[in-house]
Amino acid sequence: MKIDLNCDMGEGFGPWPMGDDEAMLDIVSSANVACGFHAGDPSIMFRTAEMAKRKGVAVGAHPGFNDLHGFGRRVIRGDSPAEIERMVAYQIGAMQAVAALAGHKMTYVKIHGSLNNMANEDEDLALAIARAVKGVDASLVNVCMPGLLMEAASEKIGVKVAREFFADRTYDDNGTLTSRKKPGSVLHDAEQAAERVLRTLQGRAVVTTSGKRIPIEIDTICVHGDEPSAVAMARTVRTKLEANGFTIAPFAGA
Amino acid sequence: MKIDLNCDMGEGFGPWPMGDDEAMLDIVSSANVACGFHAGDPSIMFRTAEMAKRKGVAVGAHPGFNDLHGFGRRVIRGDSPAEIERMVAYQIGAMQAVAALAGHKMTYVKIHGSLNNMANEDEDLALAIARAVKGVDASLVNVCMPGLLMEAASEKIGVKVAREFFADRTYDDNGTLTSRKKPGSVLHDAEQAAERVLRTLQGRAVVTTSGKRIPIEIDTICVHGDEPSAVAMARTVRTKLEANGFTIAPFAGA
Amino acid sequence: MKIDLNCDMGEGFGPWPMGDDEAMLDIVSSANVACGFHAGDPSIMFRTAEMAKRKGVAVGAHPGFNDLHGFGRRVIRGDSPAEIERMVAYQIGAMQAVAALAGHKMTYVKIHGSLNNMANEDEDLALAIARAVKGVDASLVNVCMPGLLMEAASEKIGVKVAREFFADRTYDDNGTLTSRKKPGSVLHDAEQAAERVLRTLQGRAVVTTSGKRIPIEIDTICVHGDEPSAVAMARTVRTKLEANGFTIAPFAGA
Amino acid sequence: MKIDLNCDMGEGFGPWPMGDDEAMLDIVSSANVACGFHAGDPSIMFRTAEMAKRKGVAVGAHPGFNDLHGFGRRVIRGDSPAEIERMVAYQIGAMQAVAALAGHKMTYVKIHGSLNNMANEDEDLALAIARAVKGVDASLVNVCMPGLLMEAASEKIGVKVAREFFADRTYDDNGTLTSRKKPGSVLHDAEQAAERVLRTLQGRAVVTTSGKRIPIEIDTICVHGDEPSAVAMARTVRTKLEANGFTIAPFAGA
Repeated sequence: MKIDLNCDMGEGFGPWPMGDDEAMLDIVSSANVACGFHAGDPSIMFRTAEMAKRKGVAVGAHPGFNDLHGFGRRVIRGDSPAEIERMVAYQIGAMQAVAALAGHKMTYVKIHGSLNNMANEDEDLALAIARAVKGVDASLVNVCMPGLLMEAASEKIGVKVAREFFADRTYDDNGTLTSRKKPGSVLHDAEQAAERVLRTLQGRAVVTTSGKRIPIEIDTICVHGDEPSAVAMARTVRTKLEANGFTIAPFAGA
Repeated sequence: MKIDLNCDMGEGFGPWPMGDDEAMLDIVSSANVACGFHAGDPSIMFRTAEMAKRKGVAVGAHPGFNDLHGFGRRVIRGDSPAEIERMVAYQIGAMQAVAALAGHKMTYVKIHGSLNNMANEDEDLALAIARAVKGVDASLVNVCMPGLLMEAASEKIGVKVAREFFADRTYDDNGTLTSRKKPGSVLHDAEQAAERVLRTLQGRAVVTTSGKRIPIEIDTICVHGDEPSAVAMARTVRTKLEANGFTIAPFAGA
Repeated sequence: MKIDLNCDMGEGFGPWPMGDDEAMLDIVSSANVACGFHAGDPSIMFRTAEMAKRKGVAVGAHPGFNDLHGFGRRVIRGDSPAEIERMVAYQIGAMQAVAALAGHKMTYVKIHGSLNNMANEDEDLALAIARAVKGVDASLVNVCMPGLLMEAASEKIGVKVAREFFADRTYDDNGTLTSRKKPGSVLHDAEQAAERVLRTLQGRAVVTTSGKRIPIEIDTICVHGDEPSAVAMARTVRTKLEANGFTIAPFAGA
Repeated sequence: MKIDLNCDMGEGFGPWPMGDDEAMLDIVSSANVACGFHAGDPSIMFRTAEMAKRKGVAVGAHPGFNDLHGFGRRVIRGDSPAEIERMVAYQIGAMQAVAALAGHKMTYVKIHGSLNNMANEDEDLALAIARAVKGVDASLVNVCMPGLLMEAASEKIGVKVAREFFADRTYDDNGTLTSRKKPGSVLHDAEQAAERVLRTLQGRAVVTTSGKRIPIEIDTICVHGDEPSAVAMARTVRTKLEANGFTIAPFAGA
């Protein structure tokens, strides 16, 4: 039994660091690298790819809105799907090149923040993003939340998909994450999160806040990197999974 | 006898256009596309690549400093060669991806503005840029001014080179362009420029302002795109060359 | 009878010009100067203020979202009203200082693009903007569309208001502009626009697309500067108003 | 005996914090607030001004190059002195407005990083900056290194000057800071730095690395905020000065 752990990384910018990427890269098997639009810069991208290579961790592009100030979390409306398609392709290519320079091969894409949320609510946007992924490199895998529009759009366009489960977030009945504003929507207890990840994988289903079971095969578990307790939670999840017979390794294609 | 004509393109940004790229693409055989750092954005890059493809024009990345306000013409000191290397690789990859999305293949690199000037005065910088080109894609050609540091660095690293002559600029005895500040350093007469290009190609040598002959084989002629008279001068150069038996076509590798 | 004509200006950035500000400043009495966030930069702001001073034209700050690429026309959600308040104050202060450096006195504020639209749909945002205006300088006038939330918020906070009518746009029954997407919502005929402006001022009411009359006193007429025909339309409006006994002059307080 | 302690602050950006401003504001008497060009944003500027007001600390604008990525430490050549003048005025005005919104009054200016260094090597630039300070508000004080070009330019233009000594840097015989690249040029021992500050104030002279005495009256001591040990060193300097009869308070005019 193999499972991937992925984490957002390279989220500093210029003089400002963020997160403990070095520690995280000892835990996860896939690193989603910010591409300079919502965070990251060419040097940070390079160092992240180089460290990932050294530690046997897969790297993917993590494209977002061109919004350093809002960290890609602000909703920005006004670009056409075609404009988004080109913006996403740009970031994928930039990361692919910097990874190559670092001697690593970028193998997947995971869309960041509000752009990802918007794509899961707008089929045209989801299709545009899938076209961007395929247009740059047809071998790339797109990391998607299962059951939502980006997954369907990827399959329609012919882009391989890795299905993702968030270790520290609860789910609504429609398969989306419960809003961060609702109490309890973000799990802070590492043991509780690890236990829930294990049950999700073993039960082959996400259990929502109402108790509904949504059957899915999960390819990768997302652990977060931008909070102080991130490393501890990620380690707990990994340890729990390994203790229960899982091998932590990049998903197929990554 | 074949010769390439290259021109900087895609130099608008967001709501601001620049130059008449559509007209220029009917004249030149290679389009140096700004990569979003000193000018350009993903949508402009895409449209330029798409038009170039349709008109049979080769496309190259035209990376510069991250300096929209100064259009990549300001000298920016403080980045290490390694940082520049990653910044250039980033832009090459971004352009490569957007060209691929447009169904075109990017085949070369030409460094923009003050970054190019600085590289021709600093071997470490020139080597870093050559490594960036090769690290992203070893088949890419680097367009260089003959006899200067970037050409030598490219050859040292193993990057193919295309040698360039500027249609509208005079040369000093060391092979560099005469400063724009000196009177007469920029040719404004299209016929005069075209005549000089022809003599340079036929004579296989650049003649400097002092009359010195520097023997070189030229692979590509740079015509400028950002001045009102640019299209007329480019057309005059092309017409003159064709009338004298030259075929306008991308340089080898492009 | 006095009336003000206002126009957005200084909308270039770095190497990219926009509009014919010099010509416009011979026609209008108030110049809304972009503050570097959606367009404009310190040098363009300075030159605009200097020209306006020389031609006896009032200057105001024209703050927008920090979105050069989208020209402040994209909707950006995610900032709190308090964050918007500080961002608007920042831009007002910047313009005030640059105007002072140019020997001119900035006298008013007009919010740009989607930020203005959003404020007219969200009272908290409108109040935040009014607080920003007052907090920087209690003597500043805020240019508002009559009958909408920004006008009410300004009055609530104690900010003086100038009421604006758009020369080239039609109005819906709720007092907002008809969407640009609807055919006929933007007037392109200068004479027709000028005639409508005259009737609006003389009738002291806006007539909507349905024929409804909304009684209002208008302090300023907005003419647009970013389209090729802008100067001609502005001149036609001015000529028509002067021919009918109006004097073109800055509104009270400007 | 009164002396001012100043520190650079508000040097985060968007999602990225920097330094412990809250702690520093309990120690210093003047806060140099980054104005959004090399660091800082409107909300960070506001919070810094608000905290400073609450703690009785003076605030000044800390303008730098528009270079977030390089933190204003890169040398950028290509702007005319007139362009720099407007860019500095812009930042001063922005900070003045945000301070006013926070209920505080901005009283001084201190130029940041490489722009400051460049001004001390180029009289035209120094004069341009002095004109910017005076043009925005003739009551503002400009914090300068004694004996260098910016001080002379300020006096020539009629801008009041506060003379500054760096607590943790050594000096060359020409009155400039010893390059950071030279071993020993940055003091890391808090007690040693505090002792040297005391001797400089009591001896009314800076002692250079060669032992030369440069007699000067110092108005303000700069302590740094962006290194982990910054707070401890600042506290040690303050304690030492207070123990020797100095009162820590803003310089005259601030």
